[in-house]
Amino acid sequence: MPPDELSIIDRYFRPLAGEGAFGLADDAGRLDVPADADLVVTTDMVAMKVHFLPGDPPDTIAQKALRVNISDLAAKGARPLAYVLSLGVSEDIDEAWLAAFAQGLKEDHERYGIRLLGGDTVFVHAGPIVSITAFGSAPKGGMVHRSGGHPGDVLYVSGTIGAGAVGLALLRGEPGPWEALSAAGREALIGRYRVPEPRTALTPAIAEFASAAMDISDGLVGDCDKLTVASGCSATIEAERVPLPDGLAGRLDEPTLGRLLTSGDDYEVLAAVPQARAAAFEAAARAADVAVTRIGRLTEATNPARVLLEGCALRLSRRSFVHESGRGRS
Amino acid sequence: MPPDELSIIDRYFRPLAGEGAFGLADDAGRLDVPADADLVVTTDMVAMKVHFLPGDPPDTIAQKALRVNISDLAAKGARPLAYVLSLGVSEDIDEAWLAAFAQGLKEDHERYGIRLLGGDTVFVHAGPIVSITAFGSAPKGGMVHRSGGHPGDVLYVSGTIGAGAVGLALLRGEPGPWEALSAAGREALIGRYRVPEPRTALTPAIAEFASAAMDISDGLVGDCDKLTVASGCSATIEAERVPLPDGLAGRLDEPTLGRLLTSGDDYEVLAAVPQARAAAFEAAARAADVAVTRIGRLTEATNPARVLLEGCALRLSRRSFVHESGRGRS
Repeated sequence: MPPDELSIIDRYFRPLAGEGAFGLADDAGRLDVPADADLVVTTDMVAMKVHFLPGDPPDTIAQKALRVNISDLAAKGARPLAYVLSLGVSEDIDEAWLAAFAQGLKEDHERYGIRLLGGDTVFVHAGPIVSITAFGSAPKGGMVHRSGGHPGDVLYVSGTIGAGAVGLALLRGEPGPWEALSAAGREALIGRYRVPEPRTALTPAIAEFASAAMDISDGLVGDCDKLTVASGCSATIEAERVPLPDGLAGRLDEPTLGRLLTSGDDYEVLAAVPQARAAAFEAAARAADVAVTRIGRLTEATNPARVLLEGCALRLSRRSFVHESGRGRS
Repeated sequence: MPPDELSIIDRYFRPLAGEGAFGLADDAGRLDVPADADLVVTTDMVAMKVHFLPGDPPDTIAQKALRVNISDLAAKGARPLAYVLSLGVSEDIDEAWLAAFAQGLKEDHERYGIRLLGGDTVFVHAGPIVSITAFGSAPKGGMVHRSGGHPGDVLYVSGTIGAGAVGLALLRGEPGPWEALSAAGREALIGRYRVPEPRTALTPAIAEFASAAMDISDGLVGDCDKLTVASGCSATIEAERVPLPDGLAGRLDEPTLGRLLTSGDDYEVLAAVPQARAAAFEAAARAADVAVTRIGRLTEATNPARVLLEGCALRLSRRSFVHESGRGRS
């Protein structure tokens, strides 16, 4: 059983309060935005059996909730500033859970240069549930939208696609080619499902060179559709170019490849970069030590993106993970 | 059963999207803060059986979730600007529920001059659950804190105290002096439990004259303790001065009076105003058509506030509503 609300704030969240939070002893926080910056705001709620599994380590739940928000900021060319946290606590949550949850946040404060500005703790009948609103600063007028892409722009993804989906499959004990991975390889992918790695190091390159960008949270193909709809164009994705987790490339049949390209939990960046800036973008990414891979191009038509495998249409049974009642990600 | 996530956004939330929300078709929103203002940020999560009851009208749930945040802004001397919304949707939510929920928000957009900047929709196993982060603008350096009070300051409350608690007691069918109220009187108090009335009209007066202020959400006495702890002083509350809902004054025994002074869901403002400014504050409140009542003073000592009834200590079995596992407000 958890302690009461005020004890939770005192013991676990007050030590995390940053500048403008007034020690979490006020009704609200104050966020000072640099005069030469735009304030970028994003919010995500993470729930059990949708974004994390019962029994997942609490520090990973905290970090996932925070990082899915930081991932949105990174894809908009915005540097993390601060966040507010609402935590729904259920009967099964104890002090050890709360301590580990707070410790997960604390580690990420240092890692991402972000601070806690405020919060709310509520007792709920089924939880835990975490809602975070995160704030970032982008260069004035420089927030990168989904809507800025043009036909001819090169499409890039950061990192690899499918690590989160494979991690979840491993946690559920689903048979598949991932069973052939080493124990360390499997652990790494489970880690990626539980704790995304937002590409904050890529933020300056996105802000400087990308015409459009977004974070991939619901599947590469469907999220690419969202970017092309917003940009009023289409795209071609060459599936054989899509970077896959170590040890899986070349081992996937077509349905499994299609599944990884349409599953959630990647939290990588999809960026469109004008051809003339592509080399500079790649150089900036290299300098930032973030792998980026050309996977296709934006094209003229406005129908959904074509996904090709060796030049032929890849058969996809869906385009993205869609949250629907009764069939979450678990 | 609810429609899928993208349909919910398309049908119900996109029409509410305001400036900087990019039609809810991006990863994040942009919030432009006036150059001469400070950005004030608050967040509150409202959950079933804690803040609202199963079967409550969905428009009232939406308005309660939004208004508890607006109430925080009002007490800080901040004018509402925008908000982001995370909605946890459970299996029992249907299109009619969502339409009414969105309609409740829409009405409050007009009432409070606030706009939707972004959001997230998640399917949850027990819901609905609503998390809102709201943004307001205060005059530069002018956010009113809990910590600015001084001994001698006059303590004011807006409106009446206990309406929400009585409304909840009526909804639960609890016996009490409220049974003697007219049907219209009972309905009005139930309405106040379901939908608070944040005192935004009082915001300029608070910003100009109050040394410290907060919104009363967890009970007058306990919330006053929070203000005095933050201000490093104590207080005396004269219970007989505390304004009660119409028809209840003079009908309450001591335990029931104590209960109303320590129950949640008031969402009125508690403000400390230096004696020299008290007349100006009262005049400004009158001009804004918000009732404010002197209920006591801040005092020197640092022990908890004294609550007097006709000069003698009022016996209180608690000082505030505290969220605790397993015993929410319902």
